[in-house]
Amino acid sequence: MKKSLIALAVMAAAGAASAQSSVTLFGIVDATIAYGRASGPGNDSKTALTNSGYNSSRLGFRGVEDLGGGMSASFWLEGSLGNDDGTTGQRIPTTNRSNVHANDGAGLVFNRRSTVSLSGGWGEVRLGRDYTPSFWNLTVFDPFGTNGVGTTLTLGGPGGGLGAGANTFVPVGTRGVLVRASNDIGYFLPANLGGIYGQINFWHGDDAAPVAGERQSDGTGAGLRLGYGAGPFNVAAAWARTKYDAGDYTTWNIGGSWDFGVAKAMAQYTRDQKDSPVEIDGRGWLIGALVPVGAGEIRASYSTYKIDFGVGGDDPKARQVALGYVHNLSKRTAIYTTVAHVRNDNGARVSLNGAVLGAGNDRNSTGFDLGIRHSF
Amino acid sequence: MKKSLIALAVMAAAGAASAQSSVTLFGIVDATIAYGRASGPGNDSKTALTNSGYNSSRLGFRGVEDLGGGMSASFWLEGSLGNDDGTTGQRIPTTNRSNVHANDGAGLVFNRRSTVSLSGGWGEVRLGRDYTPSFWNLTVFDPFGTNGVGTTLTLGGPGGGLGAGANTFVPVGTRGVLVRASNDIGYFLPANLGGIYGQINFWHGDDAAPVAGERQSDGTGAGLRLGYGAGPFNVAAAWARTKYDAGDYTTWNIGGSWDFGVAKAMAQYTRDQKDSPVEIDGRGWLIGALVPVGAGEIRASYSTYKIDFGVGGDDPKARQVALGYVHNLSKRTAIYTTVAHVRNDNGARVSLNGAVLGAGNDRNSTGFDLGIRHSF
Amino acid sequence: MKKSLIALAVMAAAGAASAQSSVTLFGIVDATIAYGRASGPGNDSKTALTNSGYNSSRLGFRGVEDLGGGMSASFWLEGSLGNDDGTTGQRIPTTNRSNVHANDGAGLVFNRRSTVSLSGGWGEVRLGRDYTPSFWNLTVFDPFGTNGVGTTLTLGGPGGGLGAGANTFVPVGTRGVLVRASNDIGYFLPANLGGIYGQINFWHGDDAAPVAGERQSDGTGAGLRLGYGAGPFNVAAAWARTKYDAGDYTTWNIGGSWDFGVAKAMAQYTRDQKDSPVEIDGRGWLIGALVPVGAGEIRASYSTYKIDFGVGGDDPKARQVALGYVHNLSKRTAIYTTVAHVRNDNGARVSLNGAVLGAGNDRNSTGFDLGIRHSF
Repeated sequence: MKKSLIALAVMAAAGAASAQSSVTLFGIVDATIAYGRASGPGNDSKTALTNSGYNSSRLGFRGVEDLGGGMSASFWLEGSLGNDDGTTGQRIPTTNRSNVHANDGAGLVFNRRSTVSLSGGWGEVRLGRDYTPSFWNLTVFDPFGTNGVGTTLTLGGPGGGLGAGANTFVPVGTRGVLVRASNDIGYFLPANLGGIYGQINFWHGDDAAPVAGERQSDGTGAGLRLGYGAGPFNVAAAWARTKYDAGDYTTWNIGGSWDFGVAKAMAQYTRDQKDSPVEIDGRGWLIGALVPVGAGEIRASYSTYKIDFGVGGDDPKARQVALGYVHNLSKRTAIYTTVAHVRNDNGARVSLNGAVLGAGNDRNSTGFDLGIRHSF
Repeated sequence: MKKSLIALAVMAAAGAASAQSSVTLFGIVDATIAYGRASGPGNDSKTALTNSGYNSSRLGFRGVEDLGGGMSASFWLEGSLGNDDGTTGQRIPTTNRSNVHANDGAGLVFNRRSTVSLSGGWGEVRLGRDYTPSFWNLTVFDPFGTNGVGTTLTLGGPGGGLGAGANTFVPVGTRGVLVRASNDIGYFLPANLGGIYGQINFWHGDDAAPVAGERQSDGTGAGLRLGYGAGPFNVAAAWARTKYDAGDYTTWNIGGSWDFGVAKAMAQYTRDQKDSPVEIDGRGWLIGALVPVGAGEIRASYSTYKIDFGVGGDDPKARQVALGYVHNLSKRTAIYTTVAHVRNDNGARVSLNGAVLGAGNDRNSTGFDLGIRHSF
Repeated sequence: MKKSLIALAVMAAAGAASAQSSVTLFGIVDATIAYGRASGPGNDSKTALTNSGYNSSRLGFRGVEDLGGGMSASFWLEGSLGNDDGTTGQRIPTTNRSNVHANDGAGLVFNRRSTVSLSGGWGEVRLGRDYTPSFWNLTVFDPFGTNGVGTTLTLGGPGGGLGAGANTFVPVGTRGVLVRASNDIGYFLPANLGGIYGQINFWHGDDAAPVAGERQSDGTGAGLRLGYGAGPFNVAAAWARTKYDAGDYTTWNIGGSWDFGVAKAMAQYTRDQKDSPVEIDGRGWLIGALVPVGAGEIRASYSTYKIDFGVGGDDPKARQVALGYVHNLSKRTAIYTTVAHVRNDNGARVSLNGAVLGAGNDRNSTGFDLGIRHSF
């Protein structure tokens, strides 16, 4: 059981001449003691060791090859880790119909990203499984980066749950390709456009065995994002549409941040629509801030989401306030804590960290995370 | 999320003294835009982002340890990648009864190769999961290397589909251990025999829960291959037999190549037989060539396969012509395109790249690949 | 298919200043030709290529980061390998209810260990999936290290089979969290306590869908271990209890070794109890030795296990004698052979290497391993 040490260096594969080429093994192991409680008759609290309270646990392999003449080729393979119990990845269907899969410990898959790229002065063409353009504004302009108990409700919105910890608003499966898309072809603008950045993506659904109410092409869609960042200022807008026999899903959102030095303020607005035959109309927003404090950072946000199911009456709505602190022991290792409180109205049923909401409307939930994030 | 760079170097684990020892992380990410169409009433075309159009996508770990005295120990762990959607591997049953498994995104398994070896001047003993001897002639003497739409029909023959993209000739499952065998013990001749090379393999089936028509030992078999390569010339013959309660499967084949400089010509012939109670007799051949053109290579082949099901009448038969071009951007990165056309006779139903053949006999199919292959 | 070589070195991730930081890729590929036979009418022998006859086959990633001030952060991700057929890992349920899973080739999971740690002069806090404290004495004080046909019967005891090759005593599933626990929080004493070492662990069950006779918290437990090692002497005791609706499971054991130079003697005793409603009371012991011989080592043990099912009559009992030899070709590579013979009494049904015991009581079984272990 003699162990070998992998060098952490930037040496060349084929000699010093190709020093810009490299292969990188990387990952994050983030463990969280998560507690959640809720109000109402029959409520139940929950305490568990979970993962990804600050950053998503992951294991990946990536590399870049300099092709000369300003061109490069690269690959990126990155899968989820359930480091609290050793599981890896999530099942990925061969269709884009749904990105919502139980983590059933099926084994390492590169569900977070699996791409090959050609890049040049003209930008980058990227093929494989990747984030959707419209996800970026939700996570980049969330002080909690859509991880842990403080995750913005704008992510947990109409589809609920997806990547949002325990924030379940309405049944999953209606939001389509929310965070990532398989079978994706993307084009990214080059970096030298004076602060303008952007991407456009096309993904195709491939439902191997469509049943009634499905098409073989269910999950086919497209999205784009355009942003501008300069100095302390950053703003971006995005749009995406994914087609389903049961009704197309469209989202657009806008987000921005301003770094005042003493604090970085953030805001975002999202609108999500599902077409007939089952029309759903959701909208949400967030304001938040990151406040540097010595080797650490205070994080705070207020987010809300409201859904119009088109059935009359008041719209279900949830509001959340979250406050956290991250203490960096090094660039790679941090300990953190977050507390969040969510208030449900008009039938919304968001609960935090697996707490069981009591019966009746207008139930509240409080969640607490305490964890360690180690990256490599 | 600080990332670490893995050095690409050949430094020693335990110091400079053991400089010949190394562990290698390697892989291929090959993405393909694949299009297929077919003739006949009810036909349907298909366009998809797939993988492995030029080389099989993979992720692996291997290493060699110098034991001194001309001896070495080594290991090789290599699994499939479905980089278009982030899936990995294919399910491997604990039996050799069938090597044909749907890629259901079950997670990384070392289905391509999983071996440990002892080598010396006397050759190599290799234990684990490995290629069968009879597969090598099909792939080595195919200009398309049994990948992508141009894959030789001699592989897609009586078992169909297996490793052959969408080339389905007859129902899968009748060809047994075609490409690889688990629970395999192999012996390889040493490299210094004046151009003679060869291997012999024994694999045992281990059907944990045999049902009616199966034996616990179903999938037990053996194979051997003997070849001679010198200068521009290379030729090899192979034989394999795998035993099943439902009828043993035997294959033998021969292939060769001659490098004329301006072009490398290739040819192969294969004969596949399944014993009673269900006798099937298939035979096929290929001629092809690789033509170097600057930084690229033109690839061309004509292959055909015919099956006698022993039911009288004309034998189902398919003929395919394939033409492609690979342009090397570097040693590691290439872009490529292939077009292939297949003609079915007497009930053969080969379709390319997932196209749906129309009803009736003698339907044709055309397929087109455009992709990028990046290795590391 | 140009391959890259990973450096085996200890270079710094972020420069020479953090030279103590490293990421390690490691593993073991151990292949075994295993033979088993048994006595009695209807018996059947079995020969198979298997794995892990000397050390458990595995693939892992681990690393340590020096945080300064005597503190460090580290991670460890390690999964099983079924290198005889390329499978990886075992399914891990999201509950601790049972650690007994068929290796169904589901794909790489870090079932062997998946942890993140903070360490300092005060010891180590470790979060994730890890060994139970009570397992250590069974494996550390077994000359065969609970691997291969010679595995101590004290492991294969009341739960049978778990990690014990083919040593099945009674039906699996009654022993609970025997070898490892998910969702575990552990504390380890620091190394500088004059030979005293110890750990305490708490793990929580999380049965997502409990059925009748189960609780959501089934599998919640705790354990501790305390030992003393100095010079040739080493002794340790451990205790663990895991709670189930169907009856709590408690184990305690003690083991020790004395290195006389010409041989290292070992002994262990274990007691396993399951509470009502189904009470089971098992106890077993082992004596053994490791005898260094040149570049190799002779291994020998006698182990026995007896279970009182509380139903009267004589208690089922098995006794095993095992003898083996390991020849080290290098520090990383060894060839080995083991022969073991087991004798069943009063209805015990332990068989070795998959042999099928004949009908009737008091059947014997003999098993033989011949293999190669290569680590990296």
